[in-house]
Amino acid sequence: MREFILKSNKAITSGDVNLKDLPGSCGRLDLVCRCVSSAFFLSHDLRRDTIFYSVHYGSPNPPVALKFVGSELKRVSPDERSIALFIKKALEKEHICIWKESTSGIYHAKKEFRDIVLERKKEGKRIFYLHKDGEPIEELFNPAKYEKNIVFVLGDHIGIGEEDEKFLDEIGAERVSISPLELHANHCIVIVHNIIDKICMI
Amino acid sequence: MREFILKSNKAITSGDVNLKDLPGSCGRLDLVCRCVSSAFFLSHDLRRDTIFYSVHYGSPNPPVALKFVGSELKRVSPDERSIALFIKKALEKEHICIWKESTSGIYHAKKEFRDIVLERKKEGKRIFYLHKDGEPIEELFNPAKYEKNIVFVLGDHIGIGEEDEKFLDEIGAERVSISPLELHANHCIVIVHNIIDKICMI
Repeated sequence: MREFILKSNKAITSGDVNLKDLPGSCGRLDLVCRCVSSAFFLSHDLRRDTIFYSVHYGSPNPPVALKFVGSELKRVSPDERSIALFIKKALEKEHICIWKESTSGIYHAKKEFRDIVLERKKEGKRIFYLHKDGEPIEELFNPAKYEKNIVFVLGDHIGIGEEDEKFLDEIGAERVSISPLELHANHCIVIVHNIIDKICMI
Repeated sequence: MREFILKSNKAITSGDVNLKDLPGSCGRLDLVCRCVSSAFFLSHDLRRDTIFYSVHYGSPNPPVALKFVGSELKRVSPDERSIALFIKKALEKEHICIWKESTSGIYHAKKEFRDIVLERKKEGKRIFYLHKDGEPIEELFNPAKYEKNIVFVLGDHIGIGEEDEKFLDEIGAERVSISPLELHANHCIVIVHNIIDKICMI
């Protein structure tokens, strides 16, 4: 399983999603939508082996966490507007501390970013934090010993923040770099998938 | 310069763009928008060394070609809706056989897909056709001799088509593979950029 956790610092936490203004009044919800598109969509197929989390810290009611499960997704298209409609439905619900399903394969909960990372860590998964100054990803993976349970943590345009970087260091998350340039989170997901796809074929 | 040419088999060729239905009535214009986003956007920066072409063959008036020049783009955001608004403006214009500027860095013309590929070929550029069964891209580039003028040709969800594949073969376009899987065109652009970014750093 490949898992991605995005910390969405400004993303909206109510169902008041204005589909005409995903970047502005919805706190860069356009980026979250593109991350979903990058995480799951292949040409004429879906990546069933992927889970994507977005933890929203925008107004009015942070945090709200969303979980997208590739093996369960239905009727979702790769365009931002269609994904935003599904997110809107999930955000309209009442959130409690356990995952509740909104539509097929899309879950919502009142969970913190750190809780979600820690849950993965406790499941024995290897946690990677995508960072421009990390180790090149190719040097961290051993193709002969392909690891099936890996988690990638990503920041949005604001980043993870000092406190959460310290937390990631403390739990032993490995800093990993995929590019010499600073990239958008959705582009990072595409590149991580590509690198692992190629390793799987060796 | 890195150039990308997308053949958009069904993309709309009038300004009648319905922003609420980019995938359906606009002939997968959502994909064209995501390709623009992938071609140019870095975190808090733009790729100035990139040109992206989309050649539309949808109704009502095919073909219409669009050209996006990274070094001239202004006021464009990475979300689909914002890019679609700029495309709508360009498609509303009258198209002739030479490029005319619509908004800053965005041009339109009545040109065929093949004309645009041939123009690049005549400029002495190396043409790559992205294809799942091509040579792995890493084997085609020599990092010691980084080529500055490269062109990548991409198909949409329908593909390039037999006739145009034959044309690409005839002009000596090299088939190049970036993944063992069939990917969306916008994801291909992200991966090509990433591979070249890494080569540039060697």
